[in-house]
Formats: sequence, structure tokens, C-alpha cells
Amino acid sequence: MRMVDIIAKKRDGKELSTEEIRFLVDGYTNGSIPDYQMSAWAMAVLFRGMTPRETGDLTMAMAESGEQLDLTSIPGVKVDKHSTGGVGDKTTLVVAPLVAAAGIPVAKMSGRGLGHSGGTIDKLESFAGFQVERTREQFLQQVRDIGVAVIGQSGNLTPADKKLYALRDVTATVEAVPLIASSIMSKKIAAGADAILLDVKVGKGAFMKTLEEAETLARAMVDIGSQVGRRTVAVISDMNQPLGFAVGNALEVKEAIETLAGNGPKDLTELALAIGARMLMLGGLASSVDEGRGRLEEIIASGKAVDKLAQMVQAQGGDKRDVYEPDRLPKAGLTAQVTAKQDAYLAGIDAERVGHASVVLGAGRLTKEMPIDLAVGIVLHKKRGDHVRAGEPLATLHANDERLLQNALQEMNEAFAYSSEQPPEQPLIYKIVE
Amino acid sequence: MRMVDIIAKKRDGKELSTEEIRFLVDGYTNGSIPDYQMSAWAMAVLFRGMTPRETGDLTMAMAESGEQLDLTSIPGVKVDKHSTGGVGDKTTLVVAPLVAAAGIPVAKMSGRGLGHSGGTIDKLESFAGFQVERTREQFLQQVRDIGVAVIGQSGNLTPADKKLYALRDVTATVEAVPLIASSIMSKKIAAGADAILLDVKVGKGAFMKTLEEAETLARAMVDIGSQVGRRTVAVISDMNQPLGFAVGNALEVKEAIETLAGNGPKDLTELALAIGARMLMLGGLASSVDEGRGRLEEIIASGKAVDKLAQMVQAQGGDKRDVYEPDRLPKAGLTAQVTAKQDAYLAGIDAERVGHASVVLGAGRLTKEMPIDLAVGIVLHKKRGDHVRAGEPLATLHANDERLLQNALQEMNEAFAYSSEQPPEQPLIYKIVE
Repeated sequence: MRMVDIIAKKRDGKELSTEEIRFLVDGYTNGSIPDYQMSAWAMAVLFRGMTPRETGDLTMAMAESGEQLDLTSIPGVKVDKHSTGGVGDKTTLVVAPLVAAAGIPVAKMSGRGLGHSGGTIDKLESFAGFQVERTREQFLQQVRDIGVAVIGQSGNLTPADKKLYALRDVTATVEAVPLIASSIMSKKIAAGADAILLDVKVGKGAFMKTLEEAETLARAMVDIGSQVGRRTVAVISDMNQPLGFAVGNALEVKEAIETLAGNGPKDLTELALAIGARMLMLGGLASSVDEGRGRLEEIIASGKAVDKLAQMVQAQGGDKRDVYEPDRLPKAGLTAQVTAKQDAYLAGIDAERVGHASVVLGAGRLTKEMPIDLAVGIVLHKKRGDHVRAGEPLATLHANDERLLQNALQEMNEAFAYSSEQPPEQPLIYKIVE
Repeated sequence: MRMVDIIAKKRDGKELSTEEIRFLVDGYTNGSIPDYQMSAWAMAVLFRGMTPRETGDLTMAMAESGEQLDLTSIPGVKVDKHSTGGVGDKTTLVVAPLVAAAGIPVAKMSGRGLGHSGGTIDKLESFAGFQVERTREQFLQQVRDIGVAVIGQSGNLTPADKKLYALRDVTATVEAVPLIASSIMSKKIAAGADAILLDVKVGKGAFMKTLEEAETLARAMVDIGSQVGRRTVAVISDMNQPLGFAVGNALEVKEAIETLAGNGPKDLTELALAIGARMLMLGGLASSVDEGRGRLEEIIASGKAVDKLAQMVQAQGGDKRDVYEPDRLPKAGLTAQVTAKQDAYLAGIDAERVGHASVVLGAGRLTKEMPIDLAVGIVLHKKRGDHVRAGEPLATLHANDERLLQNALQEMNEAFAYSSEQPPEQPLIYKIVE
């Protein structure tokens, strides 16, 4: 078998065999297939696509290219959740303890933020002392003990995907849908998922800008799931405006706690329930969305959802008082307000700009090495569709540096669009793909 | 400027600017742009194509990427000739002395054979003592003195093309027409051509299998010529059966000498006159094809064409007696005949198989390092359309190794197709693109 023939086959629009895909993933992982052949192949995939069978094979070959997490010592169906990334997306902070409290074991590896998308691991570090690095055994034991653990990505998982992802980034092949889909799915499978709930974000603050693109990606991932025997459901949700009100690590943690206590923003609560209910169904603990939602609403009302987060924080080295008294979380020293320029309806809040302003404040990083400030960020006071009066506060910025505050304020002033008429309602959830 | 943005632009079907193309060629030549970006770009070009302006810019950037031959010390229009390669294609051996005798200065660099295509430089080495390596000054002086010199490729000409060509070979991007066209044209321009005559071969024994493909390539090269101010004419000629009767180095030299003396095969003579006449026109020495042909026919009849080859052989270290007494050329020790299997018309002689049989005999090489045997090869006795009787000799194989002779004989037995009816005539020249 020769890589040049495999490239030519894909270039000519033919379907690669399981053996050919295994050969290329193994060869690329062990270095016998060079970057310059892999990038030409990736570009051919971008133009020609891959069949569901090919994409499934690619996913499994990448999932098996390195270490794999064995979660069989944890009883129950392990349902993993993945978001394609957005601004103010603290859904995992809500959903993980929520479904764990309902009986779904959550053994989750999460990432750090990059660019205008935040990362769950950064957010969790807002709890002083919280450990995101655990040994394999500590991690599994915690899930067996309290039903939930969220740690950073560790171990040599999916090295083929890591290498290919870095290569795609510099060869203009990031956009190839089968490669995006198999990259995400291979990581979830290597991390031991039995079933997968995907939150595919669409809009200004997301990688996928149109519903059509989001649907194509969601469909590709759900198809992989059925190819490789992992039940997968995708929720396509809005990322034109930030999710909830808070953007920034500790600020988002506070909002997640409020949501777990039943006092969260409407959109975040709704999305967490929609996702959580489907995770319960995937885990066999609910037979309908309504049944699942009902269960989760009860858990929130009972206080068990907040308790589960507190248990997790305590188990991973933090102080559970931070959960019950969120004022103990990191706080920034400076604040400033963005005010409305006119009496009008808010026609939109540009999620990408808000995300960028939060990076300017120091809440996010542009390169993997940049340090971040857990305390800073933005709290919106209004959302799309709200009516505002000139001079009324639209958002509060929390900062630790006056110059950065001024820069972010400038950016935030451009984030709001006004309209004399009430804008048509925009759905939070566009579609469920399963 | 970033290479990843240039790849993305081409991927999205947009036209690259002159500066962008210069950036990528210079960067690739000096190593700042890695192979893995160049191969992704080449694959994007394969799918998206390039405009004539882009292809012209690429050609000039590659032509200027290394050393360039300065032929200005030679008076007159320097018309170069290039063939895309075929079996039994000894046209340059005929055309170079022929047009030189008519007054066109020929300062030509030629290549060696690879695969089933022969190379002019190998063939010329059939003259004992013939030097294919000359200093720049010896080369130019010889053209000024006698009007013709044919040497091997030397110096650091078009390093960008050399690097890109090798990369395309292993990334399934050889087939991209703008890359084939600019590769050929950049070499001719770096070698100092004022005008270019292209012989684009089409058929079983050629890289281009269909007339449509050949025409696309010819058009791309002629367009480059007008973009970069080098008048270019392409002749699309048949390569379904070998050109002439002889295949193999010394055997082809002998046939070329016969053709220069007016006793050559009909097809080779016709092609040499068609190409030569157009070179005279490109050089301003004839105002019509007919006028050019007439001049060349006179030169052949006068013996001046053979004399010019003899002069060149002598000037480059050979013995001119080899030209006047071709029996002095290398001869193989063994011969065997392929005979007709039936009374029939010859419906075809598979050029690729004949080329392969000649490689089996040792006349060609499969890798650049393989030694070749100048004496061996094949002489056909019949061509397509001829009527043959069962047992009549169709070809004689010349060999120096009994085992290789038997293998080649087996291959040659499969090269002939028979038909009870006379096959329709196939043109030698399909089209002129200018």
C-alpha cells in the first residue's frame, strides 16, 4: 500500500477502504507518512468529502491511535457531552453536576479556552485549590464515589488527531467537515464515552456561521456515532449572542451556581435542561425529553444539583463553601458600564465582539501559553429583544487593569445593535439531530 | 503575507496576486515555506485551476528562482523545442541540425530518458566520445561557431520547479495542468528561449491519453507564452504507435541520420518538417509553413542537414565518421524477430508496450540511477494500417542478454493488434495550437 495511491484515490472521488484508512492513520502517527502527503490528502478530503463509513473508520483509527480511557469500572452508561465552543458557554458547569445528581456517571475530560471561546477547565480553576490534574485512578475513584469528576485532558489520547489537527491549522484544511467531525468524535471515544451529546453552536460567536453548516457537521457526527456504535444526539443551539449574562471565568461559575440553584438566566437554564434531559435518555434514565426535564427540575428544586457541584469541588481539592457563598470567588478591582446609546430595542449582541472584549480584559488567551485572569469579564444586563432607554446600563465590565478596561469598553460599545422595532424572536435551539 | 491564507484563497477558487505567487515560489525555494503547505496548495490548484495570468506569474517566478541562461551573445531568435515525451521520439535529433542548417541558432539543453520515454542526451551518447557536459562558455561558443549545440541540463536552473516536481510526484498532484504547463515553460525560459515550439504527444504511449487532455495542456502552455512574451506554438502529435521504426538509443540515432539524409520513415520525416517549418516561422526565417517546409526539404536534399549533425558531433568530442558511416555506432550481439500471428491488417502497435519492451532490453531506465545499454532496442518493420501475412516479421529485437531478449519478446508479442479490415487512417498531427 502506498500513500500516494491513497491520495490519488480520494482526489478522484473514490471511497477508501478500512485498511487504507487504518494504514494512513497508523503511518501518520508513527511518522512513516510525512506531513506533506497528509496535507495533500486532507485537501483532497476537503474537496471530495468522505462517506459515513470512511468517516467512521477514520474516527476509530484515530481513537485507537494512542492511549484509551477504560471506564468499565464505573457502572452505568457513560454519556459524554461536547460543545463546539461559544461565548459565555458554561453549560458543562451546570449539566455535569445536574445529570450526575440524576444518576448519570460523569467522567469528563474538558479543555482550556482558546480565542474567544472559554474552557471549562479554566473556569473550574476559579475555585481556589481545585485540581484539574488527577491520576487515572483518582479520577475513576471519584466518579465511583460521588458520580462526577471533571479534569483536564491528560495522557497520550488520540495522538493522530493532535498531529492532524495542528497540520490542518496551517494548511487551510480545518474546514473539511469529515475531519472536524472525526476529530471531535475520536476524542470522545478515546475518553471512554458510551454515548455522546453534542452541542453544536451556530452564529456570529461560533465556528459554524450558518444553520446549514451546523447541520452538516451535526449530521456527520451523529452518522459517525451510528457507524461506530455510540449513540449520539446533537443539539444545534444559538451563538449569535452570548449564552446567559456572564462572560469570564469566575463570573460564569457564579452564574452556573445560580442556574443549578434554579435562579439562572432563562436561555442557559433552558439549554441545560434540553441537553441534560437528552443525556438522561441516552443513559437509559428517562424515556422522554419531558420525563427527563421533569427529573432535572426536581433535582434543581431540591438543592441536590448545587450539592453535587459542592461535592465535586471538595473532592477535587477546592472548598465547598465557594459554591454556597459565591462571593468568595475571585473578584476584579475595577468596573465600568456600557450604556445604551438610544431608546430602542436591542436587535443583537455580537457574541464574537463580546468574546473578544473578554479576551482583551484578560479572561481568555490568544495563544496556548498566555496567562489568564480568572476574575475579569463581562456581565450583560440585557439580551437581544429587550427594550432599553438611552443611558441605561447594558453591561458591566470587570477588570484589573485600567488600560485594558478602556480598550474592552470600546469594543463592547460596538457589540450592541439597536432597532426601533422589536426584532423577531430567535430560537435558542434550532434543531435536534439524532 | 501568510502561506496558509494563500492556500485558503486558492482553495476557495480565488485568483492569487502576482505578489502572492512570487511569495510562495520564493518561500518554497528558500525553505521558509514547508513541503506540507506546498502540497496542500498544489492539491487546491488541481481542483481549482489557475488563470492564465496566475500561471504566467508562476512560470516566471520559477524561471527566475535560480540560475538563468543568457543567450544574448548568440545573434538571432533562439527557438527552443520541447516534447512531452514518447516512444521512438528522436525528433530533436533530426530537427536540431535541420533548423540549425537553415539558420536558426539551436542552443539546447535536453534530458535523459525515464520510464518508457527515451531522452535525447542518452541517444547522443551513442556517438563514442560525445560530450554532453560543457562549460557555459564552450556551449555558447559552439552555437556561435556552428549554430548548434545539444547538452545535458546543467547548472542550478529552476530549483523551485525541481523541488515542486518531486513533491507533486509523491502527493498525487502531478496531474494539475497549470503545474505541468508552468513546469515545462519555466525550464525553457530559464534556458534562454525567445520562442518555443512544443510537441505535445497524445495516445497510449504518452502522458496525455486523450486529445482533449493534450489540447488543454497545449492551450495552457501557449497561453503562458503570450502572458510572458515568448511566442509559443504547440503541435499535438500521435503517440499511439511509436514514432518511426526504431526504439532504442543507437538504433534511433541511425534512423535520425537516415531522416536527415532524406531516407527516413514517413511519419518521422513529416513531423520533423512540420515542427521545423514552424520553428523557422517563430525565428522569422519563413513566412508560411509551406515556405519553411520547402527550405528544409532543400537542405535535406543538399546534404547540409547531415553535415550539420556531423559538425555538431565533431564539435562535442565525437567522430563525424559515425554520422556518415552509421554502422560504426554501437551494435547489439543478439537479435530475435516478432512475427505476425495471422494474415491481417495491423490495427495498432501499442506504444507503451513497445516502450516497456525496450526498457526490458536495457534501452531505458526505471530509476534515475539505472545504467542503460545504448546498443539494444527494437526496430519495427510494419506500422499501423499495414497488411501482414502470418509468420512475416513485424519487428526485430536487438539485445545483449538472452533472458532479457526472451522477456522483451513476450512483451512485444502482445504489442500488435490485428484486424480483418483496414483500420481507418489515424492522423500523425491532430492539431496546431497557437
